[in-house]
Amino acid sequence: MRPPLAAAAVGRDSAAVLRPIHAGDVRIVGGLWAERQRVNREVTIPYGFEQLERAGNFENLRLAAGASEAAYAGLPHPFLDSDVYKWLEAVGWEVGRSRSPELEAMADRAIGLVAAAQDADGYLDTYYQVLRTAPRFTELPMGHELYCAGHLIQAAVAHARATDRTDLLDVAMRVADHVDEVLGPRGRPGVCGHPEIETALVELYRLTGRERYLALATCFLDRRGHGLLGPGTYGPAYYQDDRPIREARTLAGHAVRALYLAAGVTDAFLETGERALLDAAAAQWEDMVATRTYLTGGVGAHHRDESFGDPFELPPDRAYCETCAAIASIMWSWRMLLATGEARYADLIERTLYNGFLAGVSLDGRRFFYVNPLQVREGHEVPRNRRGGSQRQEWFGCACCPPNVMRLISALEHYVATTAARAVQLHQHVPGTLRVTLEGGDTVELETVTDYPWSGRVEVIVVGTGKGPWSLALRVPGWCRGASLTAGGERRDDLEPGAYATVTRAWQAGDRVVLELPMPPRLTEAHPNLDAVRGCLAIERGPLVYCLEQADAPAGVALADVAVLAGAEPRDGFESELLGGVVTVRAEGLAMSPHREAGWPYRDTGCPAPQRQARPVTLTAVPYFAWANRTPGPMRVWIPVAR
Amino acid sequence: MRPPLAAAAVGRDSAAVLRPIHAGDVRIVGGLWAERQRVNREVTIPYGFEQLERAGNFENLRLAAGASEAAYAGLPHPFLDSDVYKWLEAVGWEVGRSRSPELEAMADRAIGLVAAAQDADGYLDTYYQVLRTAPRFTELPMGHELYCAGHLIQAAVAHARATDRTDLLDVAMRVADHVDEVLGPRGRPGVCGHPEIETALVELYRLTGRERYLALATCFLDRRGHGLLGPGTYGPAYYQDDRPIREARTLAGHAVRALYLAAGVTDAFLETGERALLDAAAAQWEDMVATRTYLTGGVGAHHRDESFGDPFELPPDRAYCETCAAIASIMWSWRMLLATGEARYADLIERTLYNGFLAGVSLDGRRFFYVNPLQVREGHEVPRNRRGGSQRQEWFGCACCPPNVMRLISALEHYVATTAARAVQLHQHVPGTLRVTLEGGDTVELETVTDYPWSGRVEVIVVGTGKGPWSLALRVPGWCRGASLTAGGERRDDLEPGAYATVTRAWQAGDRVVLELPMPPRLTEAHPNLDAVRGCLAIERGPLVYCLEQADAPAGVALADVAVLAGAEPRDGFESELLGGVVTVRAEGLAMSPHREAGWPYRDTGCPAPQRQARPVTLTAVPYFAWANRTPGPMRVWIPVAR
Repeated sequence: MRPPLAAAAVGRDSAAVLRPIHAGDVRIVGGLWAERQRVNREVTIPYGFEQLERAGNFENLRLAAGASEAAYAGLPHPFLDSDVYKWLEAVGWEVGRSRSPELEAMADRAIGLVAAAQDADGYLDTYYQVLRTAPRFTELPMGHELYCAGHLIQAAVAHARATDRTDLLDVAMRVADHVDEVLGPRGRPGVCGHPEIETALVELYRLTGRERYLALATCFLDRRGHGLLGPGTYGPAYYQDDRPIREARTLAGHAVRALYLAAGVTDAFLETGERALLDAAAAQWEDMVATRTYLTGGVGAHHRDESFGDPFELPPDRAYCETCAAIASIMWSWRMLLATGEARYADLIERTLYNGFLAGVSLDGRRFFYVNPLQVREGHEVPRNRRGGSQRQEWFGCACCPPNVMRLISALEHYVATTAARAVQLHQHVPGTLRVTLEGGDTVELETVTDYPWSGRVEVIVVGTGKGPWSLALRVPGWCRGASLTAGGERRDDLEPGAYATVTRAWQAGDRVVLELPMPPRLTEAHPNLDAVRGCLAIERGPLVYCLEQADAPAGVALADVAVLAGAEPRDGFESELLGGVVTVRAEGLAMSPHREAGWPYRDTGCPAPQRQARPVTLTAVPYFAWANRTPGPMRVWIPVAR
Repeated sequence: MRPPLAAAAVGRDSAAVLRPIHAGDVRIVGGLWAERQRVNREVTIPYGFEQLERAGNFENLRLAAGASEAAYAGLPHPFLDSDVYKWLEAVGWEVGRSRSPELEAMADRAIGLVAAAQDADGYLDTYYQVLRTAPRFTELPMGHELYCAGHLIQAAVAHARATDRTDLLDVAMRVADHVDEVLGPRGRPGVCGHPEIETALVELYRLTGRERYLALATCFLDRRGHGLLGPGTYGPAYYQDDRPIREARTLAGHAVRALYLAAGVTDAFLETGERALLDAAAAQWEDMVATRTYLTGGVGAHHRDESFGDPFELPPDRAYCETCAAIASIMWSWRMLLATGEARYADLIERTLYNGFLAGVSLDGRRFFYVNPLQVREGHEVPRNRRGGSQRQEWFGCACCPPNVMRLISALEHYVATTAARAVQLHQHVPGTLRVTLEGGDTVELETVTDYPWSGRVEVIVVGTGKGPWSLALRVPGWCRGASLTAGGERRDDLEPGAYATVTRAWQAGDRVVLELPMPPRLTEAHPNLDAVRGCLAIERGPLVYCLEQADAPAGVALADVAVLAGAEPRDGFESELLGGVVTVRAEGLAMSPHREAGWPYRDTGCPAPQRQARPVTLTAVPYFAWANRTPGPMRVWIPVAR
């Protein structure tokens, strides 16, 4: 059996119900995601290398190595090193999938800088090495030293798993060992204000088998929630230090922090089997999904502290929905999927991947959103930190999102399928090939043919049969009504959504399983307690959330003045020339005459209402992920309903 | 003629259309505002004195005077001095209205501390005097030195006008002279990141007649908008340094900053008559009212940078609506009213005063809101800075709001009435007495009898007739339909709302003018572009905005699950035992069965809707200003409509 190579590559002893498939055994061939991977590899990652030089991330490493006299870059942020590590992680997965002299040369240079910057005792954090503003590991609430170390470890794990390259792993293990000595179970009690290292250390344990890393991860988890970090600017909930991890039943505070922590908690369950960890994580996940998740899968309603916000406080315009939070959500849901085998986790991964996450990068791979709102009005300006607005940015002062996008797209294969005993589960429907070694040691090979997400037909061809019977499970997404499965001449209809359709048999080479997922456009409404989008509908189709952009509005009609008819019967059609080729959805609506009289914008309903003329128009919606790739302008996911 | 004594006490040469009335000639006797003034005087101001000692504001002054060894208090905020000055301003107006040995002793102590802290060259700002973190006036973007100086000047003007006490004025003039030397027309070019001193300097000019203060104010105004302050954290629009004041047509950035600046611009117009200033201010005011003002008169939608936000971006839950912004809005609208005589400015003052402002202080006068949302959900927590939440706080680390509340309530008489030639305008309907010296020198005396805002009958009795004819103008609020006026046995019906009803005659002592303002409860809906409250109605009555509180919800019904019937006919009634005596409004509604199933909170409308049981309930609404004076819990102004 090949060694594990995937996100959360759990071993045989894990408490996982499902196990990842070696990423090298999954190929995404053609379709939307292969194109995104191509752009990521050919454009975004090399572009990231340039940006890391331009923004001073590399120079900071040279400074720490004593090889530069430049001013420390990126202030006031102390976490620029992490951008390098996330970028390196992306390169690791890329090079593992397919050699690339160009990418490997970049990685050589970056890894060389990282290695040179490390101190003799293993310490590595250029901010404190260069600036010496405080003794090391004394500014844990906001210093991000362990956060950076966590990303370094993840990058090193990627290179070791995907390429057998261990020089970065040596650096990372020395960092981890040093952290363990200073802050570990026998060291000073402390935790990082930004969780990240917990999940990273569990991965390092999986890779190396060294128990001390698992013990360090659980030590950090156990210390959390006891006020070690102090109140800080935003209170202890901001960095999840208000409640012990086993007691927390909701996610609160800074969304990315909360989600990375939850991933770490779930990782700890996967390796220790401690049920209280999974129970807490499952309760948190359920609450997040039920009360604090946008239609796009995005999370985080507050700009001020980048936090979740109250239940049902989900403003579409003032949504934060940080791209990193979408990524962290996917990482966490993946671990929950491994832990439970429940389709709802794969459902949320799909929704987040295609919508809240993918909107974070432009089609050309060179511009990024940090904040992903569901509505932008006319006249909206890009804020000074450039995180919001109606245009993606080339880079950010706090550039956590772009390299995070890179590493997730590079690692997409990890999230496609799993195995358990003599079964293969297909979670994400992508065209390509798959090879899995089942319990018993025989290997099966599958080929998936599909135009998903543009069509719902997913054909799986058994290329290598293995020996004896095994099960093939295909996810029927939660959004899908009327799904059917045909295998061996037998057809099953009305499959349960949000579950797996399973076929168990002894397979013949060439056997085909066809999953038909009807995906007519849907009109979606929100929970009645979700006040911000009352009286609105959203358009969805398959896994995709749609939006209206000003660019597609009828001439002379402002997006602020359109409504969709309650009884609209939306129609879809593939447009190969639009936005790289997308299915658009058209729906009947009304364009109201502009209501632009200056004056008090509230009206006594006892007075006659001002007459607004309404004329029928056809509304054209495009996939949300593809917005802001044309002339910048207003956009909205939620459309007022005309009844 | 008595010298001017009021907010924006313009002189005879002013460009003002209306002139304030000497505050000593206006008495508010009985009713809601007299009670608020009593509580302010007897409870809140003495409480403020204690808090300023407890929070270290006074100790900072002692530190600057070399009379203490304590640690500097209030860090990281550099503007604690301003809290002392706003409190002193409140005391000035209070003592002017009616002597008080207790308050005067407090003022003596505070003024003594202020005077002792001043440097020989006139400089006074304890943050830079004590901490010396930077040379003086070199951190203008965020240092708040001139902001503090502005509040000192306003306090000094209040004491000088109201009490003839000039020791604080001496301090303030030395500060102003020093600022003029360093940063004036012949000094270094600079402006303060937080506008405030501009309006204060115009007032100082009005009081002293010294042109240099007006010139310094206009110098600061002219310098603004040219990027002198640099981009800062939030960009130059944050402190209104992005566009010259005459070019700005919208308010943007930090709301309190923008509004104090607008007050200063309008003050400059009042004294210089430069029309471009008024034109810019009027355009800004119109845009603010039409697109960026909450139903309560509150402004500021963004927590992150305390800024206005986009047009129509007015989330009720995530509203910021800083109490100080309501106060600044009232100060500005007052100046616009003087400049134009247009009733809409008095309308907005009324709305803001009774709602967005008054909610900022508890009925007992000891607790304060910094942030004034229009909706709070179950489970909402008080943030670390304690600015939001469902409970008022005793004080704040940044305590700008409490003493600002004090100074406005102390100065309420200023905003009641004006005069112009041989006319008296009554803008705010409060019970009490009024004496005005008209053009020609004769003095008239009026008595107003009214239970406003609980009833709409306003009876004005002419007690002193003056000589010859003069006009009495009473504001018919913009919200009022069917107003009538009876004078001299003659009745005029259907008066135009948002305008003045004027009676001109030679008066007899005992003449009565009766304004009848029908105030049945109203159901109000928002502009269709105001997305956040689509499908909702608010309840209003007279000048008051109402809200639902959990405390009044039917047993077992969560506020999140109620709706108001579209055809509800709300009924009102005075409840003397409730919240100090308020008119409540009851309306027919529905309580929906809770919709609490965990799960994805978005629904395909093509699937059958989950059945929710609805049972008729009576909803009870209380004035918004009185919310959060009982058991803390959910609250909402905007109520979903059941159709």
